Amino acid sequence: MRVANFNGGPGALPVEVLEEAARDMLDWNNTGMSIMENSHRTKEVMAMAEQAQADLRSLLGLDDSWAVIFCQGGASLQFAMIALNFAGPGGRCDYINTGLWSTKAYKEAQICGAKPRLAATSEEDDFTYIPDAFDFDPEAKYVYLTANNTVRGTQWKHFPPNPPAPLVADMSSEFLSRPLDLTHFGLIYAGAQKNVGPAGVTVVALKRELADKARLDVPSMLSYPIYIKNDSMYNTPPVWSIYVAGLTFKWLKNTIGGLAAIETLNRAKSEALYQAIDGSQGFYRGTARAASRSNMNVTFRLPSEDLEKKFKKEAQDEGMVGLGGHRSVGGLRASLYNAVNQEWVKKLIDFMAEFQRKNG
Amino acid sequence: MRVANFNGGPGALPVEVLEEAARDMLDWNNTGMSIMENSHRTKEVMAMAEQAQADLRSLLGLDDSWAVIFCQGGASLQFAMIALNFAGPGGRCDYINTGLWSTKAYKEAQICGAKPRLAATSEEDDFTYIPDAFDFDPEAKYVYLTANNTVRGTQWKHFPPNPPAPLVADMSSEFLSRPLDLTHFGLIYAGAQKNVGPAGVTVVALKRELADKARLDVPSMLSYPIYIKNDSMYNTPPVWSIYVAGLTFKWLKNTIGGLAAIETLNRAKSEALYQAIDGSQGFYRGTARAASRSNMNVTFRLPSEDLEKKFKKEAQDEGMVGLGGHRSVGGLRASLYNAVNQEWVKKLIDFMAEFQRKNG
Repeated sequence: MRVANFNGGPGALPVEVLEEAARDMLDWNNTGMSIMENSHRTKEVMAMAEQAQADLRSLLGLDDSWAVIFCQGGASLQFAMIALNFAGPGGRCDYINTGLWSTKAYKEAQICGAKPRLAATSEEDDFTYIPDAFDFDPEAKYVYLTANNTVRGTQWKHFPPNPPAPLVADMSSEFLSRPLDLTHFGLIYAGAQKNVGPAGVTVVALKRELADKARLDVPSMLSYPIYIKNDSMYNTPPVWSIYVAGLTFKWLKNTIGGLAAIETLNRAKSEALYQAIDGSQGFYRGTARAASRSNMNVTFRLPSEDLEKKFKKEAQDEGMVGLGGHRSVGGLRASLYNAVNQEWVKKLIDFMAEFQRKNG
Repeated sequence: MRVANFNGGPGALPVEVLEEAARDMLDWNNTGMSIMENSHRTKEVMAMAEQAQADLRSLLGLDDSWAVIFCQGGASLQFAMIALNFAGPGGRCDYINTGLWSTKAYKEAQICGAKPRLAATSEEDDFTYIPDAFDFDPEAKYVYLTANNTVRGTQWKHFPPNPPAPLVADMSSEFLSRPLDLTHFGLIYAGAQKNVGPAGVTVVALKRELADKARLDVPSMLSYPIYIKNDSMYNTPPVWSIYVAGLTFKWLKNTIGGLAAIETLNRAKSEALYQAIDGSQGFYRGTARAASRSNMNVTFRLPSEDLEKKFKKEAQDEGMVGLGGHRSVGGLRASLYNAVNQEWVKKLIDFMAEFQRKNG
């Protein structure tokens, strides 16, 4: 029996996607093999990867001034690639620190020899909000931010309006969850395992004019220009992960109807859940400031850690999993990624009311 | 209908592995989700990764002086990681050049600032053989080689007996195809997509004493010590690829019976095919010197490129795919990885005889 999956990542995938992947496992696209057994240089696999890219471009509205590539290594490898390609030794770059992942990105830039600098941070209030005032370095090569903070349950509503350099954003946990104005962005990326597909592929879209400025003294597998020049096939790409991501793009485009449609669904889910929290007379307590609340990761606490433990246990017994907060902060978290459906959220809200009635 | 898959990589996977992966797609291990939707930090996924590692250790006979990790980025990322971790800026290291992949590894070491040096090469005879005389640098930090050359169809039968430093070997296209004496090795690795599983995971085994000497000024996702310390979960690992690799390890251990058993099967396949080539009175012509012939990739030519084209086309029509040589050299190649079964090879040999009868 399928459970209600509120995992923070890897997270839920559309059941239609899984069914198609299972159905075609022994004979994909009339090749007489699994897609994992096909050479990546066959016309069938190339067409699959091109279709995935075309669907992604269509969803995000990317014209040819953008390149789209598929990398490996997750956000953590992007932390290094961004600093190595666009800052380099001693290169200046601005970071906006909104939690664990931007902190890691900042530290990785230091490891890579760049000179990162904080343009803003919400650390003084335990990362409960998204800053709206920035001290930008006019010489920065880029401005880095994390669009949605999986751990803290905060999300940018309005990105910095006048950055001095291209915005570079980790969108892992909100990728393709809402339409975005990408005017000021130079690069966006997402580890697939939240909203897109299986862990093992990182989707990157970057402006070609930014890529043209990349340093060339970096390892080949960390060089954006090499990915672009080779259409992400400098070496064997993670074909299975691109394939499942492509099925998810297709589902989002054709079954759901695109980013505006999924945003409506996602808002309905998170608003219902926040309403349940706010209407609980303090039994459930959201951890993020209201104006910065994420539509993807709803973080909350109960009156005690014992009750939180009991909550997780009883929810699990009723088929709702992944409700524990990130190990670095504890508490509870319901991740409402694109493939989390309305019924699961309804079930969770009903459970919360019942749990409060019994334990409140 | 399943075809006879002679792809050079990604290559054939055991059908039992694919069937199990398909069967468990919607509900893996009673979790109510696909394994792709499970958090990598759950006890179920951790147990899966541990089992995969245990089976691999058992197959290779690795004791605790070895660490086993799962990376991403394929062999090409290992090229950089090896040079960055073990040589560093200006660091001396020896390379034995036996073809395309060791050439790339050598060049990547240069890109990474190391000072690689050729201890031997077979380039002067078009990489048709494995060298057996070496000019080692006593100051080299490691000696790099490619165990099996997918492109040229050559394979090491006896590794250098007295290297001045630990051997570091790309085993991608022969990994787990035969028992190996790892006495002089410090690190072996394999991109999974030939003998092990789907593209997207690279299996690395390295001596802990070598890892302890690694430089620490490298990006986190390129640092062997970080992988070891975090048991390959510094960030979200490519769970699906590790899972399928684990199923393949299990198949190799339990269904086949281990490396000695698979070597017997692999030898039978390649010997039958080489016999067919050598017995064709020059119609089929092996490209590698006999003493260096690979048991994994059998490379051969026909009297003309037109005939080669015809051969590939007619083989494909009869359900045998992947017989084209690597795009850098042309010709024909039958890759006989672990999951390629005896019947397919028999079918190919029969086809070759018939093709010669008609066109010879």
